[in-house]
Amino acid sequence: MMIMTPPRLVTIRQGILSKNDALAAQLRARFTSAGVVAINLVSSPGAGKTALLERTLRELIAAGRHPAALVGDLTTDNDAERLRRSGAPVRQIQTAGNCHLEADMIGQHLAAWGLRLDEIDYLFIENVGNLVCPASYDLGEAVRVVLLSVTEGEDKPLKYPPMFNSSDLAIITKCDLAAAVEFDRAAAYASIDAVHPGVRVLETSAKTGTGMADWLAYLTELRSARLTALNP
Amino acid sequence: MMIMTPPRLVTIRQGILSKNDALAAQLRARFTSAGVVAINLVSSPGAGKTALLERTLRELIAAGRHPAALVGDLTTDNDAERLRRSGAPVRQIQTAGNCHLEADMIGQHLAAWGLRLDEIDYLFIENVGNLVCPASYDLGEAVRVVLLSVTEGEDKPLKYPPMFNSSDLAIITKCDLAAAVEFDRAAAYASIDAVHPGVRVLETSAKTGTGMADWLAYLTELRSARLTALNP
Repeated sequence: MMIMTPPRLVTIRQGILSKNDALAAQLRARFTSAGVVAINLVSSPGAGKTALLERTLRELIAAGRHPAALVGDLTTDNDAERLRRSGAPVRQIQTAGNCHLEADMIGQHLAAWGLRLDEIDYLFIENVGNLVCPASYDLGEAVRVVLLSVTEGEDKPLKYPPMFNSSDLAIITKCDLAAAVEFDRAAAYASIDAVHPGVRVLETSAKTGTGMADWLAYLTELRSARLTALNP
Repeated sequence: MMIMTPPRLVTIRQGILSKNDALAAQLRARFTSAGVVAINLVSSPGAGKTALLERTLRELIAAGRHPAALVGDLTTDNDAERLRRSGAPVRQIQTAGNCHLEADMIGQHLAAWGLRLDEIDYLFIENVGNLVCPASYDLGEAVRVVLLSVTEGEDKPLKYPPMFNSSDLAIITKCDLAAAVEFDRAAAYASIDAVHPGVRVLETSAKTGTGMADWLAYLTELRSARLTALNP
């Protein structure tokens, strides 16, 4: 969400971002002290955030964990309804045209929701489908995870560097379709590595379950690190 | 590209949009008087704008037409290079982080390019891959065409209504993958119709050529209407 134009607007934008960063820092402190791992999921529309999240919530619950999710969309409650079937607490954030989530929205929805943070392990935040604007808005997450589906084209990281560069993990999704779309795995890894050298990459299919074990192991690591930090 | 926040910012945004609209109106007048059909292609990242455009440029040139293209991306010159192989004049617009094209960028690039508008029939403008922000920016186009790939999920129009509502044509792309992704055609049409009742919909595959004849017939209609308006 960057706008060309007058210096005055740039100043206001910087003000908005500083305000967002300050709110995000407060959220991060709350999440940390409650032992909650917050995960900001970002991607293009249709890269499979909801499908991955749905399966993740189910598998975490089956493993005795306590996940919750906040789901951002311009409009509609479809994703929240779909995710609630997992049994996890889920709240929809309708952004009313806003193309990204902001820390302020997270804070307001947490307050209205009444979710007890000390009773959950993971808070997944599914951002609005957009490979540009959400990159600029810290939501207080522990990690930012960017999804890239095999159907999108291997060069997307090169074309949307801030999002891939600001993420802690990249997940290649819809791997069950890799052959059908002639996905060039080496080219995708090279693109990711070019904009974020050394970043960890996982490959998943929410449909077949490929890679879910690696993803859940990653989540378990994050949770262990969080608990160790709280009770060293 | 909508921002929550202070009334002052809203005022500035409205100012930016009015300025954009004024520039877009000037561009539209230039395109119209030169007999050029300008087409603004919008979609998610990876929905297949470049693949469709590449095939379209080749087929138009084979049919004796004179197309040109302006291609927007945050960074990289990949798409322009790929499209130039068609033989059409192509110019890349690097938006340097901007998540959408604006009329001003089109005007500046046309001036720097030296393209003679009276020598071309079609000017395709490939917008930045983003289903939100480009909806607010008129580029002086004759028609806005939104692409929805079968891999994205049939509910995308419901989740991104302004883009689908503001488009004159919706193209369902990557139809060769419809079976592999269990694409629900009726659901997709229902979603599109819900946010833009009666809008025309085409189905294409740039890979197999499915639907290209319909798309080219649509382009020919636009061109004929433009010429008839100029020389009644």
